[in-house]
Amino acid sequence: MLPKFIIGVRITNRNIMKIGIIGLGLIGGSLGIDLKAQGQEILGVSRKATTCQTAVEIGVADQASTDLSILAAAEIVIICTPIAKIADTLQQLIPYLQPETIVTDVGSVKQPIVKACSQLWSNFIGGHPMAGTTEQGINAAQANLFKGAAYVFTPTAENAVGIAKLTNIAQSLGATPYVCSPEVHDAAVAWISHLPVMISTSLISACLGETNPQVLELAQHLASSGFRDTSRVGGGNPELGKMMAQYNRKALLRSLQAYSQNLNTIISLIEQENWDNLEQILQTNQEARPKFLN
Amino acid sequence: MLPKFIIGVRITNRNIMKIGIIGLGLIGGSLGIDLKAQGQEILGVSRKATTCQTAVEIGVADQASTDLSILAAAEIVIICTPIAKIADTLQQLIPYLQPETIVTDVGSVKQPIVKACSQLWSNFIGGHPMAGTTEQGINAAQANLFKGAAYVFTPTAENAVGIAKLTNIAQSLGATPYVCSPEVHDAAVAWISHLPVMISTSLISACLGETNPQVLELAQHLASSGFRDTSRVGGGNPELGKMMAQYNRKALLRSLQAYSQNLNTIISLIEQENWDNLEQILQTNQEARPKFLN
Repeated sequence: MLPKFIIGVRITNRNIMKIGIIGLGLIGGSLGIDLKAQGQEILGVSRKATTCQTAVEIGVADQASTDLSILAAAEIVIICTPIAKIADTLQQLIPYLQPETIVTDVGSVKQPIVKACSQLWSNFIGGHPMAGTTEQGINAAQANLFKGAAYVFTPTAENAVGIAKLTNIAQSLGATPYVCSPEVHDAAVAWISHLPVMISTSLISACLGETNPQVLELAQHLASSGFRDTSRVGGGNPELGKMMAQYNRKALLRSLQAYSQNLNTIISLIEQENWDNLEQILQTNQEARPKFLN
Repeated sequence: MLPKFIIGVRITNRNIMKIGIIGLGLIGGSLGIDLKAQGQEILGVSRKATTCQTAVEIGVADQASTDLSILAAAEIVIICTPIAKIADTLQQLIPYLQPETIVTDVGSVKQPIVKACSQLWSNFIGGHPMAGTTEQGINAAQANLFKGAAYVFTPTAENAVGIAKLTNIAQSLGATPYVCSPEVHDAAVAWISHLPVMISTSLISACLGETNPQVLELAQHLASSGFRDTSRVGGGNPELGKMMAQYNRKALLRSLQAYSQNLNTIISLIEQENWDNLEQILQTNQEARPKFLN
């Protein structure tokens, strides 16, 4: 790759990093598109040779292979496989890595992954870019997917250089980096991502349990934006919903139990016809919601 | 008003109805705009003289007054006041009505309104046009607000002529009319409109209860479309949420209790790590959701 010149300043090869990406689906592919467009050298790995070929053709990677040995020269490796395969992939990758190589992942839960991976590789720093679409696979990969998104990193050891490299990458994608412990990450995503799926799917379950067919049919005809929005994430990918619960079980159960108590308070207030307190809760929540939507 | 001629067929005054609208806010005003544009003669009533003036100026009504006696000649009267004032308004209106006049309302709950109003006026037929915006008042009134919306009527006595007149009006607005009992209406809207508000607001309450300030702050930063959609109706107008619960208490409690059971099932499955059954529920709900979104 030729060095770039910008306003007469030569950006040398020292600024161009070799970045490995394992798993060239929506997230891995979209990372590749943006990072390659910046001039980074992208080394892609996929299980499928056809995906490797597509990756090079559509500008996801400079080189791509089904063989992890292609990553021997990488300064940073981003594992973009499904959650269940991240630790295994790292294990297979280790023989090829240089000792100083930073390895990160993109899994949506951090504690179990970080626990397994940081034992395997001391330069492992968990990552979670919070972006996505309903599409999957390399053909869904797109430029600027991470623009405006949060990108969380969860280091467990002192690694100032690694954290700086990864937060710089996040910023170069237009994302906002956050650094916290895996526990804080998992508790936060339980509240705003995994809990909503479970309470939303319970709405659909409850409606389907209506025993009067005339009421159920009318409900289906009358449902509009309120039902549509509240049921959206609960009607999404079942495998993804199950995975969230499996991998973030403890934090999700903690959120679900707190949620259940809050719901029971609402039920009691309605039973007791305590309209003032019900309105007070609704008022507090109306005022608080915008703090979650910056 | 001059009679209209369409392809040589004279539509006589028999086809032009005098329609009274009491309460010239978003719903009453929008009904007036569409019905007046069709050539109906609209008689508007508002408590405020300035609203009456605006109504005539912006084409909501042909005539408007603060005095209910203006409705003496109306064939149909639509009461568009807040729920709490519907029965009182009808009571005050009765001295001016002709015996055959059809009276309807636009309240979002039907049993308590229909019970009170049908005792006062045998030609009362409850109505609920399921449209709205977050705006209120006559200046929020707009053309075509009801296009594509459901419009439910809940007669409690034989009144073929009245039902035909009202369903014709609904169709002329581009809405889809449904006819059912007040009980079926209230049970259906409890599922798809009032229950979502309570489960959505409980999500915000639960998040606000997080005791670790670092987790709460991160959750607020990371919240994106999933949280936004699931919390939307729970962060809406507190007075409206309270009113739903007050007026549809019985049906809402029935829905909340069924919902709570479904939520407890989800919690138990996660506690037991019964991932197959959890995925099965998510799968069923993914498949069922589109039936609510026609």
